[in-house]
Amino acid sequence: MTRQLGAVEAGGTKFVCAVGTGPENIVARTKVATQDPATTIGNVLSFFAEHDVTAIGVASFGPLELRRRHELYGYITTTPKPGWSNTEIVGPLEAATRVPIGFDTDVNGAALGEGRWGAARGLSTFVYVTIGTGIGGGAVVNGQVAHGLVHAEMGHLSVRRKPGDDFAGTCPFHGDCFEGMASGPSMAARWGTPAETLTGDALEAAIEIEAHYIAEGLRNIVYAIAPERIIVGGGVSSIDGLLPQVRRKLTESLAGYPGLPDHEKPDFVTPPGLGDGSGIAGAFALAETALAERL
Amino acid sequence: MTRQLGAVEAGGTKFVCAVGTGPENIVARTKVATQDPATTIGNVLSFFAEHDVTAIGVASFGPLELRRRHELYGYITTTPKPGWSNTEIVGPLEAATRVPIGFDTDVNGAALGEGRWGAARGLSTFVYVTIGTGIGGGAVVNGQVAHGLVHAEMGHLSVRRKPGDDFAGTCPFHGDCFEGMASGPSMAARWGTPAETLTGDALEAAIEIEAHYIAEGLRNIVYAIAPERIIVGGGVSSIDGLLPQVRRKLTESLAGYPGLPDHEKPDFVTPPGLGDGSGIAGAFALAETALAERL
Repeated sequence: MTRQLGAVEAGGTKFVCAVGTGPENIVARTKVATQDPATTIGNVLSFFAEHDVTAIGVASFGPLELRRRHELYGYITTTPKPGWSNTEIVGPLEAATRVPIGFDTDVNGAALGEGRWGAARGLSTFVYVTIGTGIGGGAVVNGQVAHGLVHAEMGHLSVRRKPGDDFAGTCPFHGDCFEGMASGPSMAARWGTPAETLTGDALEAAIEIEAHYIAEGLRNIVYAIAPERIIVGGGVSSIDGLLPQVRRKLTESLAGYPGLPDHEKPDFVTPPGLGDGSGIAGAFALAETALAERL
Repeated sequence: MTRQLGAVEAGGTKFVCAVGTGPENIVARTKVATQDPATTIGNVLSFFAEHDVTAIGVASFGPLELRRRHELYGYITTTPKPGWSNTEIVGPLEAATRVPIGFDTDVNGAALGEGRWGAARGLSTFVYVTIGTGIGGGAVVNGQVAHGLVHAEMGHLSVRRKPGDDFAGTCPFHGDCFEGMASGPSMAARWGTPAETLTGDALEAAIEIEAHYIAEGLRNIVYAIAPERIIVGGGVSSIDGLLPQVRRKLTESLAGYPGLPDHEKPDFVTPPGLGDGSGIAGAFALAETALAERL
């Protein structure tokens, strides 16, 4: 019999749980609304009580403690989400299922998923960036997810202001960082209405500014990590016409340095190959890794 | 008999060549002035003709082609240094010595050297940044040098302007990027005199501005890579009183996010443990790796 793996994409509004041999062969799936931690994790455990799995991968909203030797390893730590600060995730799953649990951020998971089954197949160094309610990024470097002190926090990279723009930005820490200038809530604050309600000239103006700040964020990712490809997902990134503008402005921002033709290829900045399935695919990849480490 | 390794630190003004079992046990050493490529490489080969080595590591000024399958692998590529554009380095060394040749940038080499013998011993994810005639950075991620499309080009990260500063910057590509605002030549252009000639109030003012831009560059490295430590070397970095200011301004720039006490420790931003020996140590580390890959 083929081994069944478990996958959990843990988000702020829902936890998607799946069982299968991988994202292309899912045999059971459920969505659990994100309520208080005890209820939510209880519902996740009920799902897995009905399915035999050999490992579970969890790709979670953060911040997370990922240092194995840290006493809070496996926790969601200082999240602003009410009730979820310092919530243990890995522990209860491990106790209930007694299988290895893989654990990483949603964006690192998405990066792994895209690397294994999506737009970064065959590449060894690439970045997944999500632009939505927040901005986050996960890097795979030499085939491994990059972890240092903590997962990267690419949403807080600095971005050069568009000349004449005096919008203060919405990041509670930095004001005008990448997330403060380019997230969905930032667009809504700037235009006084959610981005998806904009049309015509207003939409065009919004895309022009949004593309500038996304390109500035990607420029810093290019110079810090030299990825072979950058995958851009998340709700904001799917605004029609946005990514082509981002590509143009990234080329302008790099200004011919270091002059690699690769940076100007249309697939250097690309949408996810798995659509909105990168996250659950990443959770499967984390389960695979956890299983391999145990064997 | 212990294996002897060869090491070459290839710089714009000199090539340092050494033979030994490692940087702590060098049995022969020479400096070759950087002239035209043929003369310079000829002199390096003469040195190694007199010494039996089992592998040679070269840590070189760049940009370099490091993709193994690329036809220009082992070359210095588009350097502005007169006469050195598209110069083959690995090929002639391999042909003359018939030993494995390790090859990487000077900053990646320095990062490896600091990881093996210096200020990053025991860490798995860290960055070495040099601030001198240019600004460059090398990252080790999960114990391996980060390479993507190309080595990273951290000198071209963007930096937020210090309010009121209207200096245009000296980067020929970007003007006011990290290197354009904080390299040695940038300081000289801003103050009309090399930094080492400044004293008193002028020096204090220069340090204040310099620390701002270095901190801004390091902030982007922190958020892109989440290193456990950042080692700052290069001539400019050794200006008395500069690093403590950089640490203070980095803390300000991170603004409490993600709130890790590690970022405020005095050794989070630290000078090289090997002083000006990081580069040659890195070349030894590259020789070791080349030997291990061959065996």
